[in-house]
Amino acid sequence: MNIRFYNAKILISEPDHKFRIEEGELWVKGNRICYIGDGEDVTDVCGPDEILIWEREIDVKGNLLMPGFKDAHTHTAMTFLRSYADDLPLQEWLNEKVFPNEARLKEQDPYPLNILGIMEYLTSGITADFDMYPYPMITAKAAVDCGFRSVITSGFNDFVSSIGQMEEEYHQINELSELTSFILGFHAEYTTSGKHMEELADLANRLKTPVWTHNSETKREMAECQKRWGKTPTQFMESIGMYEYGGGGYHCIWFDDEDFEIFRKHHMSVVTNPASNLKLASGIAPVKRFLDEHINVGIGTDGPASNNCLDMFREMFLVSGLAKLREEDAACVGAEEILYMAVTGGAHAMELWDCDCLAKGKKADLIMIDLNQPNMQPENNLVTNLVYSGSKQNVKMTMINGVIRYEDGQFFIGQDPKEIYRQANAIIDRMK
Amino acid sequence: MNIRFYNAKILISEPDHKFRIEEGELWVKGNRICYIGDGEDVTDVCGPDEILIWEREIDVKGNLLMPGFKDAHTHTAMTFLRSYADDLPLQEWLNEKVFPNEARLKEQDPYPLNILGIMEYLTSGITADFDMYPYPMITAKAAVDCGFRSVITSGFNDFVSSIGQMEEEYHQINELSELTSFILGFHAEYTTSGKHMEELADLANRLKTPVWTHNSETKREMAECQKRWGKTPTQFMESIGMYEYGGGGYHCIWFDDEDFEIFRKHHMSVVTNPASNLKLASGIAPVKRFLDEHINVGIGTDGPASNNCLDMFREMFLVSGLAKLREEDAACVGAEEILYMAVTGGAHAMELWDCDCLAKGKKADLIMIDLNQPNMQPENNLVTNLVYSGSKQNVKMTMINGVIRYEDGQFFIGQDPKEIYRQANAIIDRMK
Repeated sequence: MNIRFYNAKILISEPDHKFRIEEGELWVKGNRICYIGDGEDVTDVCGPDEILIWEREIDVKGNLLMPGFKDAHTHTAMTFLRSYADDLPLQEWLNEKVFPNEARLKEQDPYPLNILGIMEYLTSGITADFDMYPYPMITAKAAVDCGFRSVITSGFNDFVSSIGQMEEEYHQINELSELTSFILGFHAEYTTSGKHMEELADLANRLKTPVWTHNSETKREMAECQKRWGKTPTQFMESIGMYEYGGGGYHCIWFDDEDFEIFRKHHMSVVTNPASNLKLASGIAPVKRFLDEHINVGIGTDGPASNNCLDMFREMFLVSGLAKLREEDAACVGAEEILYMAVTGGAHAMELWDCDCLAKGKKADLIMIDLNQPNMQPENNLVTNLVYSGSKQNVKMTMINGVIRYEDGQFFIGQDPKEIYRQANAIIDRMK
Repeated sequence: MNIRFYNAKILISEPDHKFRIEEGELWVKGNRICYIGDGEDVTDVCGPDEILIWEREIDVKGNLLMPGFKDAHTHTAMTFLRSYADDLPLQEWLNEKVFPNEARLKEQDPYPLNILGIMEYLTSGITADFDMYPYPMITAKAAVDCGFRSVITSGFNDFVSSIGQMEEEYHQINELSELTSFILGFHAEYTTSGKHMEELADLANRLKTPVWTHNSETKREMAECQKRWGKTPTQFMESIGMYEYGGGGYHCIWFDDEDFEIFRKHHMSVVTNPASNLKLASGIAPVKRFLDEHINVGIGTDGPASNNCLDMFREMFLVSGLAKLREEDAACVGAEEILYMAVTGGAHAMELWDCDCLAKGKKADLIMIDLNQPNMQPENNLVTNLVYSGSKQNVKMTMINGVIRYEDGQFFIGQDPKEIYRQANAIIDRMK
């Protein structure tokens, strides 16, 4: 599909995590952006004998085109546990509510549960997620079937998956589709034996790839890890050679100086999950310090059971507000830095190097933001409006890999929303 | 107008801040709810010779009818400062950005600025606000013209308004319309002389009415008040007889034991403003303690310059999440308690005794929530879905005083949205 957007405001990335707004046109050829400009100077857009035939020409009416958000930490299929077990601390929530019900999932249940989550991502302008769940092949199939971009990691631990299975998934999912990729990972230090973590470190070194995991999320996790290994999770994993090719951590709240140094040294990324950290009373991540140390930061919603919604607008506000509260400094971690994390920082954490900004040659993963809503007016500063006032109701369109998957409240994912809702409710009814 | 809603889920209030869902019909006669039930047993709905003629019969299609949210602390006309001065602490923000630009407002500017805010309230299912700003008569006129319910208090301080003007506004606005009411108030201890506060206490005692103000918002405010009066703001105001007829405080973050006792003793209310408190790095309010002391709590967005959006869904999540973080207890301040604050606690703080729940005889201030959205599925628990996953995009309809003012993205307020946006942008352009 070739699509021409005109009369648009376009969010363009600048150096040092800044942005500017350009007015004009953005053209999509196949799955990539082939042109951004005033529509006049269009040399070099096509080959010499090529004519672009528009399948759609969309009048953006002065609204904003911007890169899609990257939800850099998710457990999408956990939609079935949304509002099932709330107001509990992390360990009880996991052991008493989450794990027993996950054990009751039937083999095909994660498919519609994933699609339900993907639908919610689309309503929030999220064009890719970084997902960890026990059924990576089903996650990948749901993403491909809906046209959603999913970077998948393993939920490997002492009870789920195996090193052999993970290696197989690594190859299968990386080769499955241009919409899916796979990065090595495991659930957490506290669910995985030293032997298993060492085997994973060996695999990472053999495949020369990064490794991701839940890291330093709660005080209890830190105390138990110290007791087991005499080290923080970050320091233990580095000590067994897990980070020779980098990687990163989800949450990363309770870091000490050496943990920051390890992340910096190995060019690792952090994904921060503020809503989940509030709801489970885990704490506030040291986001300002990550930025001061030039550690790349992305933003994730975490799963629908611990958030409970999958909304990058709420997360963006929270990353900024919680940093200000933690530092007792209303001036720290401003709006542009937050927007950079939500679109570019996340993309880099997920190794989506071609989906990190709007520019010629980049993948057409982009969204249209309705500025003709009261929460986006007046237009003192569009970036600040987006980060502090933006909301799902401003998302007019979500395009992934050059295809519109959500527009004006309608989904274009080859699925009937009502049937997905029916299946999700049937799954929870069966578990009652 | 008489309107019949059928095929509805209806949120009904239960004792002890609980809710249940009833399926059936809700009828509106004029500006009040005249019936909730299965549509079969409808005796006593009309007078003996009266026939209800429906102007509309609305198939709710299994979606949720619930009381409108009460935004219990606002500065609506500050929409012009949204995204104008962000990432600054409260005192600098007020003195260097807010006050100088407010001084440049022209007489009729607050009218469209108020309407812009009212439009945003409607998109978030907010049916009434509790507003403090220097131009109460313009605020009241904007509310009446749009059909919005506004409880107005004075922004009186050493530079704004006077005791005489406040008394005049008290009578005028309380008599103006059934949509408007006026409660005595002043800006804050730190902007108002002891003499002025004493005069206000005299007025409150003469009129036998409560008084509201910004109270205990920042550490700096507390330190300066201690220096001036040797007391906290709450204790100083009680000492001059301000609270003989109750009242309340906005923010109320830095309370000591005696402050709690004063609020309890005088049956006062607190309005908590979590997004603003994060963004200005003011702190986290002790919401769990307020509940433990049986002090009534409402929720407010604060103004668009310090939040920056006017969205009760974000505030509800934050009240719960921040309480959990503050207490290091993920089990505290659960979803039903939050929903009670957002609809009923706020109404009681604002003395809107007839707008606090859905029941026969109550005012028809109600909203329709679209449950056929991915963030509301599956339906493990509707109240929890609302509080933790709800979003502006779920608001299908907002009715105030029996009249639909917002439905399916359209406003019915006798104003052209584009013209309001134009006027708001013209005001900020003039100030550049």
